[in-house]
Amino acid sequence: MKKILNNPADYVDEMLEGLCAAHPEFYAQPERRVIVRAGEKKAHKVGIVTGGGSGHLPIFTGYVGPGLLDGAAIGDVFASPSAEQMAASMRHADAGAGVLRLYGNYGGDIMNFDMAGEMLELEDIRSTTVLLTDDVASAPPEEAAKRRGVAGMVYAFKIAGAAAETMADLDEVTRIAQKAADSCRSIGMALSPCTVPQAGKSTFQIGEDEMEMGMGIHGEPGIWRDKLKPADAITDEMLDRLLADRPLQRGERASILVNSLGATPLEELYIIYRRARARLNDIGVDIVMPLVGRYATSMEMTGATITLIRLDEELERHLKAPAACAYWQV
Amino acid sequence: MKKILNNPADYVDEMLEGLCAAHPEFYAQPERRVIVRAGEKKAHKVGIVTGGGSGHLPIFTGYVGPGLLDGAAIGDVFASPSAEQMAASMRHADAGAGVLRLYGNYGGDIMNFDMAGEMLELEDIRSTTVLLTDDVASAPPEEAAKRRGVAGMVYAFKIAGAAAETMADLDEVTRIAQKAADSCRSIGMALSPCTVPQAGKSTFQIGEDEMEMGMGIHGEPGIWRDKLKPADAITDEMLDRLLADRPLQRGERASILVNSLGATPLEELYIIYRRARARLNDIGVDIVMPLVGRYATSMEMTGATITLIRLDEELERHLKAPAACAYWQV
Repeated sequence: MKKILNNPADYVDEMLEGLCAAHPEFYAQPERRVIVRAGEKKAHKVGIVTGGGSGHLPIFTGYVGPGLLDGAAIGDVFASPSAEQMAASMRHADAGAGVLRLYGNYGGDIMNFDMAGEMLELEDIRSTTVLLTDDVASAPPEEAAKRRGVAGMVYAFKIAGAAAETMADLDEVTRIAQKAADSCRSIGMALSPCTVPQAGKSTFQIGEDEMEMGMGIHGEPGIWRDKLKPADAITDEMLDRLLADRPLQRGERASILVNSLGATPLEELYIIYRRARARLNDIGVDIVMPLVGRYATSMEMTGATITLIRLDEELERHLKAPAACAYWQV
Repeated sequence: MKKILNNPADYVDEMLEGLCAAHPEFYAQPERRVIVRAGEKKAHKVGIVTGGGSGHLPIFTGYVGPGLLDGAAIGDVFASPSAEQMAASMRHADAGAGVLRLYGNYGGDIMNFDMAGEMLELEDIRSTTVLLTDDVASAPPEEAAKRRGVAGMVYAFKIAGAAAETMADLDEVTRIAQKAADSCRSIGMALSPCTVPQAGKSTFQIGEDEMEMGMGIHGEPGIWRDKLKPADAITDEMLDRLLADRPLQRGERASILVNSLGATPLEELYIIYRRARARLNDIGVDIVMPLVGRYATSMEMTGATITLIRLDEELERHLKAPAACAYWQV
């Protein structure tokens, strides 16, 4: 296992300790594995929390900050947080206007977050749920509700976070978050795996000259595995699959996120972006605020994801509103 | 070669095309492989340029922006730009007050940048040079002038860039840049190599359970190679070597940069930062604006560097002054 760590059992807690120590202006850890915004709460603002396994920085904790999330519950690497941790994140995030739970469509997270919601209901804190299901490779369109949530989360956090800052009520923030989630489509491809510290071995095996199209961020099986293709061919196929699922028309506006799964360098993301942009320009789509970088990772996995979000005036306004965290400033 | 690219010969040009297309608010490419600030020049501001090989994003081009650099000349991966490209970057950066050349101590870059300086002298554009020599593992203290420049460049760009924005003259900007460069000490360690696209093979070989302490960012040999150690032991040795070279006393102020060479994830950087911070707190050093992330990489190399910069009032003021590029906002 080629990782810089101490005892694998301490990986997550030592990481969170370092994260809060490095960025005290953004993050605080009032309870173990619960990260909330540093400083005072804004009374009567809807709280937004997320949660999920570790190993995806900046997702999940990284997006706690003004104009973004209010709290996050953090599990072991690639494992759900407990219902208690999720409930604690919601208690801290509540400022009297209820809490939106905004996270990815994974079984363990849903079970625990639903339980957390029931616990909070007994404490008279109202909460709602919006699930990200943006990974088009994870289920066909007719079973879209089964799709996993991946990097589209970044757009949903940003847009819902901006809506909450306008002091909209819980139903309105939930509506806008759902619209953002429904407007995202993502697809990933992977070249090499990562290692879960406590397991000590790679999440999957893949040949030295192979790639896998459509693979999930935890190594979930994709659509095909074959010889590594040129960057333009990879980008074309990813865009073709995204646009087949949710076509974009001439004159429509969209943002695009070209995201590294971890090891893939910025240099290669820009090569992908260059091609994706040319393709969208050919269709006549206006690109708004393109994002290129590491926004949602799987530690040291090699590969990239592309997310498209179609924007109407409301989504675009919230996407462009001010926000700040240790990884992103708008 | 597990990289997402098209023709390896096009890697750098396609990357720069994508970079400028993704961030037109920051970067423009007026001539091939010359990146300058987007928008108007500030008349009579000292220009600051850098240059060097590709494959280190955000270094070099990434740090072009307000409060930072005015231009960068970009070579092939791990290769010097030409004297002509460097001269062009200086011509674009000059706003009537001369140009500082601020870059790392590598033979090819020095030869070409010196030649560029002579070319500009014939055009009556005055220029000065400050070289980064922050890598303590690359030569002993008595031969400090032979040391290579690594991630300390980030601090030098930031501080010199802020000095230039105050409209200080070329001698003054040069003095402050030299002080910043002299105040930095860095050391790196590597776990796995990267691949130069046109060579198509790894820059070095290393065992599946080995690390190399003191290795350079292009795979230059380090101090020792042995079994991978725990994160705290690695961090302790790196700090010990930095502090032996340039001791810090109780009450002194310093910034620290914990930098990924590319593949090493944020999670592991925070584990390192956690330990480094505890060590500096034990000595009684005040940590100012810690930086944790990917600031100077070698594409998909696995490993990390630590940089310490001792700050006096002047350096701290310039470090904290506003600045913006696609990767960093202060």
